[in-house]
Amino acid sequence: MDYRSVFDTSVVRLHGTASSDADDTLAVEEPLEIQVRRESDEAWVSLSVTMRTPGNDDELASGFLLGESIIRQRSDMVSAESWGPPTGELRVRNIVRVTLADATAFDVCRLRRNFYTTSSCGICGKASLEAIDAMRPPALDNREIRIDAHNLYQWPARLRERQEVFGSTGGLHAAALFASAGECLTVREDVGRHNATDKLTGHALLNQIEVRDKAILVSGRASFELVQKALMAGIPVLAAVGAPSSLAAQLAGAFGMTLVGFLRDGRCNVYSGAERIVTS
Amino acid sequence: MDYRSVFDTSVVRLHGTASSDADDTLAVEEPLEIQVRRESDEAWVSLSVTMRTPGNDDELASGFLLGESIIRQRSDMVSAESWGPPTGELRVRNIVRVTLADATAFDVCRLRRNFYTTSSCGICGKASLEAIDAMRPPALDNREIRIDAHNLYQWPARLRERQEVFGSTGGLHAAALFASAGECLTVREDVGRHNATDKLTGHALLNQIEVRDKAILVSGRASFELVQKALMAGIPVLAAVGAPSSLAAQLAGAFGMTLVGFLRDGRCNVYSGAERIVTS
Repeated sequence: MDYRSVFDTSVVRLHGTASSDADDTLAVEEPLEIQVRRESDEAWVSLSVTMRTPGNDDELASGFLLGESIIRQRSDMVSAESWGPPTGELRVRNIVRVTLADATAFDVCRLRRNFYTTSSCGICGKASLEAIDAMRPPALDNREIRIDAHNLYQWPARLRERQEVFGSTGGLHAAALFASAGECLTVREDVGRHNATDKLTGHALLNQIEVRDKAILVSGRASFELVQKALMAGIPVLAAVGAPSSLAAQLAGAFGMTLVGFLRDGRCNVYSGAERIVTS
Repeated sequence: MDYRSVFDTSVVRLHGTASSDADDTLAVEEPLEIQVRRESDEAWVSLSVTMRTPGNDDELASGFLLGESIIRQRSDMVSAESWGPPTGELRVRNIVRVTLADATAFDVCRLRRNFYTTSSCGICGKASLEAIDAMRPPALDNREIRIDAHNLYQWPARLRERQEVFGSTGGLHAAALFASAGECLTVREDVGRHNATDKLTGHALLNQIEVRDKAILVSGRASFELVQKALMAGIPVLAAVGAPSSLAAQLAGAFGMTLVGFLRDGRCNVYSGAERIVTS
């Protein structure tokens, strides 16, 4: 467990009528600023501030940029590095600077994330889908992928075994990369569920892991943004322990992604791409 | 239940080796754009786009502005109204326009929510706390408030009984306003937990409900932003079924708010303001 991920505090613990002072461990939440520039640029551009659990900040920034289609492949980035003086009691660096290759297209305005509002239909779920389409997500080239349902049912337990910080704090979202055969390859945790997924897709990008035959499992619900992140990373299967939203299901369906929800207790619902999940 | 809050879809339901086609109901997720202007201004300013579950959009916008200290009281606002043509299959309006009183201070730059980065210490949890302090949260004037722990233990069950959309979709965060004596006054649900809390504080503001003797219960975890929203609304107690983050506990502690976590199964942890929770 990373020392920067947890924070010791004292609490009053109540149980029935009993009250006692106790020590408790919390998941750390600190702001992270993502700054970007191209290699030959002078100035850094501040792209966003997110509240995150420190650790793997280079992955978080890389995954965020991948999800927004700022970068498409490892070679679009030169480096991603923590920057600035260590701050606060935990002495963490809360800025991460990503240097893009000069050839990388880089539109500051679009990065401000107001792109939904510029779509022709005004602002609606359909416009959100069109905005993703305009980002030209990679084709999900995965004709060979089949996931055995009985194997899939075991994934949440495998994820939970690997959730180090959750075990001590009970307070983090997790995202895990699974091989289609069921091996839990990488787990990332964060107070923000989008961040956990960014760290995971960023990890795969930075390490040039082939993801076209992999799946993501998230510990919570599946929102539009999580489907977007998996899609832009080229990962064909997103499974969630919780419920998907309407727009998450629509986005997955529109791009041929497999979306699994309510994966628990030997059951699940498959909202799209059901051909990749086999029961026999 | 609001017809705009749920979306019917078809799924493949897997249970063990059995596979069947079924109908399923999802929580709706659609973008909402919040626009603001003062009464005598010509132009509307687009403030933010959030992915939310339609319904109570006027409350969501009001609560958001209250949490960011753009408005402090009901009289700072003239109106909050849905706007634009109904869009998408669900025919919902995805823009909400808030007209502020001319006397309301209104700094567009700060609204862009990059205020963490302007703090003197750079960017860190301490700077986040200082940013809240600079927003001058209302004093939590509540010397009389006492909540009986045995009553408090019942709150999650009372909230669950009132979660209409969750019951059909399993997919929403909820926030509820409780009287300190334990009555569940109002429940709001949303695919985004920040939105559920914004709707709740916005509801209280729009209806001029006295909140200085009330509490909020949230169905998930307690993040920094949720504590910020309760604090800026002047609500002295925030209870969460899940875990708080480090910065949530620090913020609550710094401003004398009561923060309760892990409220379940006749137990809880009190991270700050324990004097308001009594066991006898």
